[in-house]
Amino acid sequence: MTKQYNTESLDEGKKRFTSSTFRIIPLGGQEEVGRNMTVFEYENDIVIVDMGIQFPEEDMPGIDYIIPNINYLKDKLKKIKAVVFTHGHLDHIGAAPILLEKLGYPLVISREFTIALIKRKMEEYKKGSASRLKTIQIKPNLKEKISLGQLKLDFFDVEHSTIDSVGIIISSPVATAIHMGDWTLGMDSSGRKLSYNFLSKLNKPTILMIESLGAVNRQPLVTEKDMWKNIKTIIDEAPGRIIIATFSTQVKRIREILNYAQEIGKKVAIDGYSMRMILEIAKKLGYIRVGKETLIDIRKIDDYPPNKIVIICTGTQGEPKAVLSRIVADNHNYVKLRKTDTILFSSSIIPGNERTIQSLKDGLYRKCDNVIHNEIMNIHVSGHTNVEGIQEVTRQIKPTYVLPVYANHYFLKEAKKIIKEIGFPENNIFVLDNGQIINFNKTNTPIIEKEKADTNYIFIDGLRIGDVGEIVLRDRQMLAKDGMFVIVVVVDKQTGKVKGSPDIISRGFVYLRESKELLKDTRKRVVEIVHRATDSGGAVNWSYIKDEIRNKIGQFFYIRTQRRPMILPVVIEV
Amino acid sequence: MTKQYNTESLDEGKKRFTSSTFRIIPLGGQEEVGRNMTVFEYENDIVIVDMGIQFPEEDMPGIDYIIPNINYLKDKLKKIKAVVFTHGHLDHIGAAPILLEKLGYPLVISREFTIALIKRKMEEYKKGSASRLKTIQIKPNLKEKISLGQLKLDFFDVEHSTIDSVGIIISSPVATAIHMGDWTLGMDSSGRKLSYNFLSKLNKPTILMIESLGAVNRQPLVTEKDMWKNIKTIIDEAPGRIIIATFSTQVKRIREILNYAQEIGKKVAIDGYSMRMILEIAKKLGYIRVGKETLIDIRKIDDYPPNKIVIICTGTQGEPKAVLSRIVADNHNYVKLRKTDTILFSSSIIPGNERTIQSLKDGLYRKCDNVIHNEIMNIHVSGHTNVEGIQEVTRQIKPTYVLPVYANHYFLKEAKKIIKEIGFPENNIFVLDNGQIINFNKTNTPIIEKEKADTNYIFIDGLRIGDVGEIVLRDRQMLAKDGMFVIVVVVDKQTGKVKGSPDIISRGFVYLRESKELLKDTRKRVVEIVHRATDSGGAVNWSYIKDEIRNKIGQFFYIRTQRRPMILPVVIEV
Repeated sequence: MTKQYNTESLDEGKKRFTSSTFRIIPLGGQEEVGRNMTVFEYENDIVIVDMGIQFPEEDMPGIDYIIPNINYLKDKLKKIKAVVFTHGHLDHIGAAPILLEKLGYPLVISREFTIALIKRKMEEYKKGSASRLKTIQIKPNLKEKISLGQLKLDFFDVEHSTIDSVGIIISSPVATAIHMGDWTLGMDSSGRKLSYNFLSKLNKPTILMIESLGAVNRQPLVTEKDMWKNIKTIIDEAPGRIIIATFSTQVKRIREILNYAQEIGKKVAIDGYSMRMILEIAKKLGYIRVGKETLIDIRKIDDYPPNKIVIICTGTQGEPKAVLSRIVADNHNYVKLRKTDTILFSSSIIPGNERTIQSLKDGLYRKCDNVIHNEIMNIHVSGHTNVEGIQEVTRQIKPTYVLPVYANHYFLKEAKKIIKEIGFPENNIFVLDNGQIINFNKTNTPIIEKEKADTNYIFIDGLRIGDVGEIVLRDRQMLAKDGMFVIVVVVDKQTGKVKGSPDIISRGFVYLRESKELLKDTRKRVVEIVHRATDSGGAVNWSYIKDEIRNKIGQFFYIRTQRRPMILPVVIEV
Repeated sequence: MTKQYNTESLDEGKKRFTSSTFRIIPLGGQEEVGRNMTVFEYENDIVIVDMGIQFPEEDMPGIDYIIPNINYLKDKLKKIKAVVFTHGHLDHIGAAPILLEKLGYPLVISREFTIALIKRKMEEYKKGSASRLKTIQIKPNLKEKISLGQLKLDFFDVEHSTIDSVGIIISSPVATAIHMGDWTLGMDSSGRKLSYNFLSKLNKPTILMIESLGAVNRQPLVTEKDMWKNIKTIIDEAPGRIIIATFSTQVKRIREILNYAQEIGKKVAIDGYSMRMILEIAKKLGYIRVGKETLIDIRKIDDYPPNKIVIICTGTQGEPKAVLSRIVADNHNYVKLRKTDTILFSSSIIPGNERTIQSLKDGLYRKCDNVIHNEIMNIHVSGHTNVEGIQEVTRQIKPTYVLPVYANHYFLKEAKKIIKEIGFPENNIFVLDNGQIINFNKTNTPIIEKEKADTNYIFIDGLRIGDVGEIVLRDRQMLAKDGMFVIVVVVDKQTGKVKGSPDIISRGFVYLRESKELLKDTRKRVVEIVHRATDSGGAVNWSYIKDEIRNKIGQFFYIRTQRRPMILPVVIEV
């Protein structure tokens, strides 16, 4: 699909960007959710915000994930002063192990918990690599002011669905960018509603980069208070065990459940690879403090009465190897479901996972009388705000320009509309594509450059980075649809006759045992094609014979089955 | 996944079903949406309700759709007195062309529009087959009383998202089933709120089969009035053309838009194969009457000013070949998008299509300033009710037993809960699996039989019915994930030596041109494997050699790439 930016509001013709402009280059996160990464560039200094991964679409079989394309940075490695991470979700840190290595391990700046997660991911990717990292840990009071050449960084608190989430202020001599990271309008650590009025006092022009996943959500947000009331009532009243599935990075929620269990004398077991890993980090850093009498090993759950047991686990999205899927498939070593268990999905549905989650729920409802999810009761607070929140924060910050970010294009467009609704000048709201470069300076209208940075997909499949391209993917799609059919013909060099019967190997096309007639007809046709070509007596054109087999047998299959398997002829002369 | 029904409330041990029980056998529609089909059996009479198709899940690549398994009816063809269709959606009539043929064209009973759709589908499937059909058309007053052996049929109005939707009463000498079809609580044709109180007066015991897709929807329903107010305002105020995408079977909505356009002097063009087909039928049957001055050919839209044009089309689910996808991809012959076009999604999102629809919206938002969908404004009324509706109708009908139907298992379980909430006896609500047989008679507790009817998937892929099974599907999944790798080795019969270099054909695994090293290593390993086996001098075990190639090269690939392509060795002796 061609992507065109409407540049009609820009005085592009009149002005040229110069070396003293502040450039923002989103390498991902403007057209989809995931692989979030933005480059901020002023003369000889570059700061990068986030390095996320994107999960593959349905038409990308076999792909593990997609990382941002860093071609733009190829010749600018020396300019890179630091990579800053807003928070520890995979769509913000997931590509760090690969990209930090490729960029020669630049300085990393973030909060303590986020850095710990990144280091852990790096060690999983390449043993020993975390020790190569230089880091600056932003302290809880966020008082750090970091100068990186002509760029300066400041930080502010944001509320999101994982701890240690921050917003970032990137100041250049000519303009100031405010990046919210992922956020919702919540409370600060001392329980006061977060306010962003102080951001209205930064040096102008200011550019507000505002994550806009809430731009079509006109529902009132579930409050933490309501959620906790519901969750605690369920914990109090459950007739048997309680299994709470949530995202592994929901440290605050896990902490609160642990604290409440401790208060009322229930035991908590935590299960799931990523959740145990995160719990370990959170305990080590002091984010979670809980007595041994409360946190028990999953192997010990049968040592207590069922109504004393709370299990917190992964698997809300129906991931096949996560705990909840293993439990429902009776593949979990320690948790066998009982009718009296209560299961909570303290989570939202990530778009694309709807049917997988439906079938997970079907399985759970078969085995349990009490399955509770957000459709039934408010037991989850989203990490993203709604329309009102986006409007409210824009009003507070009073930026000169707004760039909605970190969502599908249509959310960004809707964000533009709702920000326009509160009287913000439409021409000062920019909806960019991945790779579009926007230039700001003190006095002039921002300029979007004609040339985009390269943002082609970089696929990760197994150990290899970027070696799966369009051709491999197209073949996989074709193989998935109708399978494949290999025909091996051995031809006598002397006589031009087919020796024996052609060998056939087929997978994913038809059930061979029940298709004997079809195979017989196919062999006969293949022999005919070869003999027709070799009978003429002249030099034999083998590639013509292969094409003929591909085309003629392809047509034959389509007429008989209306399927188009990939046909692969092998002709061997002996 | 094992599926167990909780039979603890049934006196199964004490009683045996006898030939004088009324049996209900749902062959589909109890575990998923689609392939809805239910068998009603009393002694020597069988009536079937609906024959729908189900769309494939993600792990069923290449499958067109799934039809109900009719093994249960194999030996009972003579008992089948009729097939009744509740309405014309594909999950209720889609399998009719195939299954009616397989069952020897039994009598078909439905409303006029539904029968016309079925006949059309039959002709598309097999030319001339519609003329073999014996039908009874239920007239609009629904006064028909049809006797089929000892079974009797009556009909009643239901409101749903297509016209001519009916509910069915199937009476046997011992019990009466009330089947709502798909429904919402709407108005009858004269604008009065539909009431089902009259159904409370049928012969007891009555069994209410209630479609329960609304069982987790606690939101108030959008009213037709609000929807029309919004749609008409948009039609009035649109600056340019209006493109309304909706489901092709939404005849009432299409009719109303046509009427309104006629009233205000706008022109309407209708596009999309299924929508034009349905329009043609609806016009022929008199459901739509519209003047030639209003309904224009899509090829003529440029003959009028843009603000006089309304286009109604298909493609709300992002189906790649439907009109909306073609428009957004610039592949439509007559509609090129303009910034000033207004696009309405008068539709809901069918679970599983979320990401496809997101990317369709992304494309539309790029090209148009006005894209409106239900997240933005209420411009669609669902054909399914909510929690309140299910409770209200159960209260009105006062059945003896309730079977929630036509939804995923977890909706059925939630329906049970909400019906229990209004004081209905829990033991009289049955949640069945596909194929579970329940027996009713005048006086005893219903019995669910131990043996289930066969409901294994019957896949349709191209022209063939049911020939794609688990093996073919598993191969397709495997091919999709990591591709395949064919190795052809020609071995000299005399010497046991490999002749030349092994041939390699690979698709979907790695990009071959950039993997020369890997291929070279692979060839070397294959030759070594063959020589190791043939060097020993004894009889050569060729199948051992193939296994060795498969295993050793498989391991080699996994270590190098962490991928597991399907490895297919071909060994040719010459």
